[in-house]
Amino acid sequence: MRPSDRTPDMLRAVTLETGVNRYAEGSCLASFGHTKVLITASVEERVPGFMRGRGVGWVTAEYGMLPRATHTRGRREASEGKQSGRTQEIQRLIGRSLRAIIDPAALGERQISIDCDVVQADGGTRTAAITGAWVALRQATRYLLDEGVITTDPILDQVAAISCGVYKGVPVLDLEYEEDSNAEADANFVLTGKGDIVEIQATGEKRGFTQGEFEALFGLARKGIGELVTLQQSAAK
Amino acid sequence: MRPSDRTPDMLRAVTLETGVNRYAEGSCLASFGHTKVLITASVEERVPGFMRGRGVGWVTAEYGMLPRATHTRGRREASEGKQSGRTQEIQRLIGRSLRAIIDPAALGERQISIDCDVVQADGGTRTAAITGAWVALRQATRYLLDEGVITTDPILDQVAAISCGVYKGVPVLDLEYEEDSNAEADANFVLTGKGDIVEIQATGEKRGFTQGEFEALFGLARKGIGELVTLQQSAAK
Amino acid sequence: MRPSDRTPDMLRAVTLETGVNRYAEGSCLASFGHTKVLITASVEERVPGFMRGRGVGWVTAEYGMLPRATHTRGRREASEGKQSGRTQEIQRLIGRSLRAIIDPAALGERQISIDCDVVQADGGTRTAAITGAWVALRQATRYLLDEGVITTDPILDQVAAISCGVYKGVPVLDLEYEEDSNAEADANFVLTGKGDIVEIQATGEKRGFTQGEFEALFGLARKGIGELVTLQQSAAK
Amino acid sequence: MRPSDRTPDMLRAVTLETGVNRYAEGSCLASFGHTKVLITASVEERVPGFMRGRGVGWVTAEYGMLPRATHTRGRREASEGKQSGRTQEIQRLIGRSLRAIIDPAALGERQISIDCDVVQADGGTRTAAITGAWVALRQATRYLLDEGVITTDPILDQVAAISCGVYKGVPVLDLEYEEDSNAEADANFVLTGKGDIVEIQATGEKRGFTQGEFEALFGLARKGIGELVTLQQSAAK
Amino acid sequence: MRPSDRTPDMLRAVTLETGVNRYAEGSCLASFGHTKVLITASVEERVPGFMRGRGVGWVTAEYGMLPRATHTRGRREASEGKQSGRTQEIQRLIGRSLRAIIDPAALGERQISIDCDVVQADGGTRTAAITGAWVALRQATRYLLDEGVITTDPILDQVAAISCGVYKGVPVLDLEYEEDSNAEADANFVLTGKGDIVEIQATGEKRGFTQGEFEALFGLARKGIGELVTLQQSAAK
Amino acid sequence: MRPSDRTPDMLRAVTLETGVNRYAEGSCLASFGHTKVLITASVEERVPGFMRGRGVGWVTAEYGMLPRATHTRGRREASEGKQSGRTQEIQRLIGRSLRAIIDPAALGERQISIDCDVVQADGGTRTAAITGAWVALRQATRYLLDEGVITTDPILDQVAAISCGVYKGVPVLDLEYEEDSNAEADANFVLTGKGDIVEIQATGEKRGFTQGEFEALFGLARKGIGELVTLQQSAAK
Repeated sequence: MRPSDRTPDMLRAVTLETGVNRYAEGSCLASFGHTKVLITASVEERVPGFMRGRGVGWVTAEYGMLPRATHTRGRREASEGKQSGRTQEIQRLIGRSLRAIIDPAALGERQISIDCDVVQADGGTRTAAITGAWVALRQATRYLLDEGVITTDPILDQVAAISCGVYKGVPVLDLEYEEDSNAEADANFVLTGKGDIVEIQATGEKRGFTQGEFEALFGLARKGIGELVTLQQSAAK
Repeated sequence: MRPSDRTPDMLRAVTLETGVNRYAEGSCLASFGHTKVLITASVEERVPGFMRGRGVGWVTAEYGMLPRATHTRGRREASEGKQSGRTQEIQRLIGRSLRAIIDPAALGERQISIDCDVVQADGGTRTAAITGAWVALRQATRYLLDEGVITTDPILDQVAAISCGVYKGVPVLDLEYEEDSNAEADANFVLTGKGDIVEIQATGEKRGFTQGEFEALFGLARKGIGELVTLQQSAAK
Repeated sequence: MRPSDRTPDMLRAVTLETGVNRYAEGSCLASFGHTKVLITASVEERVPGFMRGRGVGWVTAEYGMLPRATHTRGRREASEGKQSGRTQEIQRLIGRSLRAIIDPAALGERQISIDCDVVQADGGTRTAAITGAWVALRQATRYLLDEGVITTDPILDQVAAISCGVYKGVPVLDLEYEEDSNAEADANFVLTGKGDIVEIQATGEKRGFTQGEFEALFGLARKGIGELVTLQQSAAK
Repeated sequence: MRPSDRTPDMLRAVTLETGVNRYAEGSCLASFGHTKVLITASVEERVPGFMRGRGVGWVTAEYGMLPRATHTRGRREASEGKQSGRTQEIQRLIGRSLRAIIDPAALGERQISIDCDVVQADGGTRTAAITGAWVALRQATRYLLDEGVITTDPILDQVAAISCGVYKGVPVLDLEYEEDSNAEADANFVLTGKGDIVEIQATGEKRGFTQGEFEALFGLARKGIGELVTLQQSAAK
Repeated sequence: MRPSDRTPDMLRAVTLETGVNRYAEGSCLASFGHTKVLITASVEERVPGFMRGRGVGWVTAEYGMLPRATHTRGRREASEGKQSGRTQEIQRLIGRSLRAIIDPAALGERQISIDCDVVQADGGTRTAAITGAWVALRQATRYLLDEGVITTDPILDQVAAISCGVYKGVPVLDLEYEEDSNAEADANFVLTGKGDIVEIQATGEKRGFTQGEFEALFGLARKGIGELVTLQQSAAK
Repeated sequence: MRPSDRTPDMLRAVTLETGVNRYAEGSCLASFGHTKVLITASVEERVPGFMRGRGVGWVTAEYGMLPRATHTRGRREASEGKQSGRTQEIQRLIGRSLRAIIDPAALGERQISIDCDVVQADGGTRTAAITGAWVALRQATRYLLDEGVITTDPILDQVAAISCGVYKGVPVLDLEYEEDSNAEADANFVLTGKGDIVEIQATGEKRGFTQGEFEALFGLARKGIGELVTLQQSAAK
């Protein structure tokens, strides 16, 4: 039934490749099928103005999509002169998700900037970005520990994300673009390694959807994120 | 326990006052306690470029906050030269929520623009905006029906919204600012009159939260939105 | 002769309602007939860069119009990404008018920001804004005196404003939109409580106009502003 | 008493030099003492969107100041990314002033764009711009008549402008920078060749000023504009 | 002598990998040592406004750098709200270089947009971009030929580019970042497959440099571009 | 053969007029035939952020073109809200060229800002700007020496620039617009007084061009710049 012949509860082939940027303190190329997001974690010895002088750290994220990451070329936001509402919404989500599992005091007054650039898009770019960003963040914080810059690990838990949706009436896990653009409802779930909720965003695309459907999506997400958490552990080693 | 002495499942005093703008085809001043959002619905005989020539309509929304709607004066987005990510996120949410209960074919190739301007903010501005916007939209579409511009009612259902959160460990309904800024988790629910889900946005602010907490919030939201739906019906008469 | 059946020297119904914003140090809803401007005065413990270190204060103003304040919906300046020339011209005028009756040394090195947002427009929004802004400013400075933040009253005089115009060949006071958009000439007068000139802006809209016409407009403005000054005193009590 | 030893009712040396741009249909270098404004009038076979299809013409103006036109270097608006409120206010005034003496039907559906660039500033740049712009506009419309593009002269009258102010308590004509920056009040007058009022902008800079002072300024302006009108006629020959 | 132990006339390891984007009509990952530029060629059935209606085609280019492509994180141009002068200069160079070897009439009224995104930077990003862009353009035009959209090959010749510089007094080929940032002079050469000059940009960084030095750089560039042209042919097969 | 009947190696009439701005520390009106660029050098007692605290100076340049400097009116960059890529490219070139002949330590921690505004354009505006900018810079630095602000002359050499091109198959010196817009190749050369290369920018406009053609252009440039260097010396006296 699915364009890729997956069963409803099956993830796409997921890889979390590290060491993909020579300069960044952490980096990860997160691939979910044809979706590929290049993520770097950069340590910066400064914090935003509103955080200055408190002695605690900050994690922030920016998100972008290369113009031809999609089927037809999109406009380059840098030449447009502004980031779209969608871009800002996504990068705010990534930042919040990572801050939920960080101890800012352990990080000290410094910032880790996460850059998520979509090299190729086939649905699920924001959840791939979050999942890979944890790996890059894990590396960057380990670097700070190894260098003796910090002494307490600021990472409190893992965090990973996946999208689910109701496609042709059936709840399915990890939507690819063809499914996503035709789904009756879709939802992004961000959970911690322990299974706590960090963020849920659920939207009825063509109609409202029922609580039962929502619960089915949540169940699929739990299963998928369980698998992602294991992949993150392998990648972060 | 709550700053306003409400019980956990109690809404603030809510009023949906219509006829508050002399020119707009629909208008509503939505008050949730001290939160006041002025909403207008404007019929425009044009649609955005990407919708042109299809013979179907569009509903869109813009959101703004007066600089002194808040405890301390915020910067005016018009003089800043751009809308914040938060503003864009909210106005996208309002637009999606309204489009979920509209039949675009019945509307014909015209647009209804919903403007939501927060005159005073005390938490829950986006959900107040959605709840009041439905009333303004109801008026504007009735105007089109009364004038004979359209012949089929494009409104398929009601839509209303409320925020809930975990405050001092207790799930509570309809957060005011003091609660919102100290909540462990908060969630915005947008449901149709029938009770279907249009949108859920749930965020752990300081920590992840459990599925049980989420379900308690959902239950409170169902109760609150049930009351809002009744208020909308009275206002729209 | 006038659309509203007023005599040429008659103001519209004017009200200056205070206490309309829960957070601002001063606030006023100025209504001139159907024109309604919501004004807040916000005390801020900082001054613009060019004023820093002089020990004296500053009063500034910003102006905006809600998109559907007018007969047809206008574009939202925040989403346009810039304020129009008209908006900037008006907010500069409001700021200058208020600074003319303020003793900046008595204010101390702090700023009062006046926000004027037009909720509904039917001509004369800038003059309504100035007239109401004085009331909000009066409240905010009284608040500073009452709190002991300052000890000398920085308000040296009142300031109020009105528009006049030549409509169908007749000089008339306090133009509403239908008159304004058809006037042969219009003029905005800003006078102090004592009757001194703070600002005059007179424009021939369709033709030049004579000195005699100008003097007739000035006479009408003196009469109208006399009445506004009395209304301000009542409102400010 | 005046820095330049002029009597109160004396203009600075004024020249209106034509033929200063090889490409423009009309051009004028307007010098009022050390103030020098380079003006071009460009005929364009299009009108702004809101004027299209009416068969009538439009005159518009833009104003700029070279960064080192002033005593200390100002920032370049093009690199700032926006025109200041002052710039927009001035260019709107220039455009209105010229449109007041133009018959748009005689111009046909085309636009004349007036560019006023201040090469050196010593007070009175906006009034110098208006005065010189009439000369450039006169040339550009004569060009259209000579080429047979239009058959009726669209110029209905002359228009010229001058500033006056109260300096050290004395009303004086044609303020230079040192006077302007210390004036108690200043006013810009735009009059037609016949002496009708096109625009008056009067501002109390440090205090309100009296009606008597205003009338003295108006009298000086009439005298000065009378002289400018004669100079325009010579220049336009 | 060189940080990488290369001889002065030696290129870094260069690879031009194709098929790196699933959607683009042409794509190439150009690697020059640690410099990696991801290039896509997108066929679009429209041309810019100034080219419309002429029946001929257009090739344009955009350039960007991921924030952590460099040793320290740079700001994201999309969130800055504008492209730097450097970025615009480079993308204009890439576009001009490609248009020099294209027959616009053979392309028909359509555009090929080249996107060059620097994934990792170690000097020579603009010349790597040009060299790889030719490969992507070759693929995209072959696609148009294969699909029968066009019948004449619009590619007239190859084009490739390399940087050279005077480093510690010695002319060297293909500067890496450490050399580039310490060079006394550097030059970018863009040549056709036949060896004609498309563009030369030579700059004395710390001092002027001599004609003899320039000629030595030109000679190195000829050698390097000769090798690149061969690599392009292999990649394009 | 040339539109102006010049021989291939002949400059246009060049004048470098000083003293053209009353306020600037240095100024020059550079005329190359009908091309006229007004240049000012402004001393500012500050340096850009990235230079602060090093005790050395900075020279920077900005470039602009009046809207009707050209045959048809161009858009005003200040009202467009951004500088074009071409403008930025040119002003970067001017700044680099001047910095190449300056000793920043001798200048002390201050900035000289060069403004180059094209009053009338007929080809070669960037090279006229560089040539005239040296004269303005020479004046501004002499002013600093004369005032005793600095004690060592920061000017190490002269710098001048000229364009050359292949027009109708013939290498010619100092292209005017008609030649420039039809040239097969053009090149801008920036040389020091001693003849060293500061910058070369050569572009094949319609085709690649040969090394022989390039060398011919270089020879012409040497001759032309030799003449300009003499003119600069006269102007700077």
